[in-house]
Amino acid sequence: MSLKITILGCHSATPRVNAHPSAQVLQIKNHHFLIDCGEGTQVQMRKYKISFAKIKHIFISHLHGDHYFGLIGLISTFGLLNREKELHIYGPKGLQEIIELQMRISQSKIGFPIVFHELNSLKSELIFEDKRVEVYTIPLSHRIYTNGFLFKEKPALRKLNINIVENIPEIETCDYYNIKKGKDFIKSDGTVIKNNLLTFPPPEIKSYAYCSDTAYEKKIIDIIDGVDMLYHESTFLSDKEELAAKTNHSTAYEAGKIAAAARVKILLLGHYSNRYRDLSYFRKEAQKAFQHTLLSIEGTTFEVA
Amino acid sequence: MSLKITILGCHSATPRVNAHPSAQVLQIKNHHFLIDCGEGTQVQMRKYKISFAKIKHIFISHLHGDHYFGLIGLISTFGLLNREKELHIYGPKGLQEIIELQMRISQSKIGFPIVFHELNSLKSELIFEDKRVEVYTIPLSHRIYTNGFLFKEKPALRKLNINIVENIPEIETCDYYNIKKGKDFIKSDGTVIKNNLLTFPPPEIKSYAYCSDTAYEKKIIDIIDGVDMLYHESTFLSDKEELAAKTNHSTAYEAGKIAAAARVKILLLGHYSNRYRDLSYFRKEAQKAFQHTLLSIEGTTFEVA
Repeated sequence: MSLKITILGCHSATPRVNAHPSAQVLQIKNHHFLIDCGEGTQVQMRKYKISFAKIKHIFISHLHGDHYFGLIGLISTFGLLNREKELHIYGPKGLQEIIELQMRISQSKIGFPIVFHELNSLKSELIFEDKRVEVYTIPLSHRIYTNGFLFKEKPALRKLNINIVENIPEIETCDYYNIKKGKDFIKSDGTVIKNNLLTFPPPEIKSYAYCSDTAYEKKIIDIIDGVDMLYHESTFLSDKEELAAKTNHSTAYEAGKIAAAARVKILLLGHYSNRYRDLSYFRKEAQKAFQHTLLSIEGTTFEVA
Repeated sequence: MSLKITILGCHSATPRVNAHPSAQVLQIKNHHFLIDCGEGTQVQMRKYKISFAKIKHIFISHLHGDHYFGLIGLISTFGLLNREKELHIYGPKGLQEIIELQMRISQSKIGFPIVFHELNSLKSELIFEDKRVEVYTIPLSHRIYTNGFLFKEKPALRKLNINIVENIPEIETCDYYNIKKGKDFIKSDGTVIKNNLLTFPPPEIKSYAYCSDTAYEKKIIDIIDGVDMLYHESTFLSDKEELAAKTNHSTAYEAGKIAAAARVKILLLGHYSNRYRDLSYFRKEAQKAFQHTLLSIEGTTFEVA
């Protein structure tokens, strides 16, 4: 199964008519993870046909408004739509207080539980795990406490080579699980049938890293090493390198350098400053350091097949 | 000078692609008053060319999200645009706490002062006044503490009939102010020249009342008596009369009855529930009680000339 990222907003700072702030939905295994939630995210979700009901986990990188001002409205809408499913929100200290204060003052009653997961570690930590997926924080260097997120599939079981397996009468259905886990099969006469004859390798595990907002930060390289796709902020071009450093943001060239050092497969740029009209320069600049660079564009879905 | 209302959003509850929650801008005398500020208001302001710099006063009716979730984003944007001018915000208790908590947690520094005017009266009260305009609250009946707002021009001075005035040599420039205020002119020989010979009447004063959200509430009739334009919520049609009563909202027919009883000149409907696709029924229903009914539509400016 492929991994898909749908961009709902990829601009920094103030929202504009066709330039929404950070929000994206990652489809990985059976999950639809919402990552950041700037103002207007719920309308972008409607526009790009993202199912509200499928969102069970929301990851907020940091508490600058362009990354979370849309969250309270989305939660309210979930309530109005009579949601009952639990909603998990991962974000920095303060987020729970902000949401709960607004719920209390509006006397809003919602029919579903919200579970807040307060992030405060300065090291990468596992914050979500189930049978098929893991999510880790990526500590970033920004003006306030900020995390990126690393989403990784867990290794799947090997696939049975059914043509072989069915022709060995001694193999019973109850042996399949051990074989899929990689074990050899030992016949009653002691003959060992090697696992690689009985199975195909599992699909490669896929991974996605989201890094916004951050200064150029080499410490993240080890954490994101080899990911299939890296979203890395590129608020500025190199013409504003000093401003990038001063505001703890990155240039497109710096994003390219991180992608190259981390040997990722594809770099996806975003969090563009509204001062730039022609986004193609971001790609050109990043490609000086890393060839496989794409531009995130609102409404576009990127697939890692 | 005319009075103009630009509708930025006129739907209730959750925002949709072409159905934004409550927000409108009233131009009255030299003011641009923003009334309510649902999510996405700042983008609607950009779309419909409302100058950010001209907004100095924001009136928030109540703290349901569809009336204020866009405020924190608008304030942040004012900050990013290096606004220096004072911003006055009129709204219920709790609004200041919500805004200040978010500013503090995001460590946002803005270069302009915000003056909060906390509303808590259960009677209509004067909340803003300058030489030319007055603003009063209109206590409404909703599920939480809610005010509408009455905007009234102050009586202007009479206009000099310059052809007459200039032919009476005894009248000096310094007499003009008293004459414009309505005083007769007394010549040195004791002759009284009646003011209505020297002046024309001032332009009629104009007024606008905003009433959203509210149940059908006769108590407001006296407060809004004779206004030039009344915006009155009509969340539902009469097919949902019971739901309207239960949720403290009004039907279009009830809005029409209020407009008729208050002898307003024009009724402007809005705050439509998203369940209705064809808004023309709202107008037809209100017109059973009050003929001069218009539908508010996003992006439309209504003028009282």
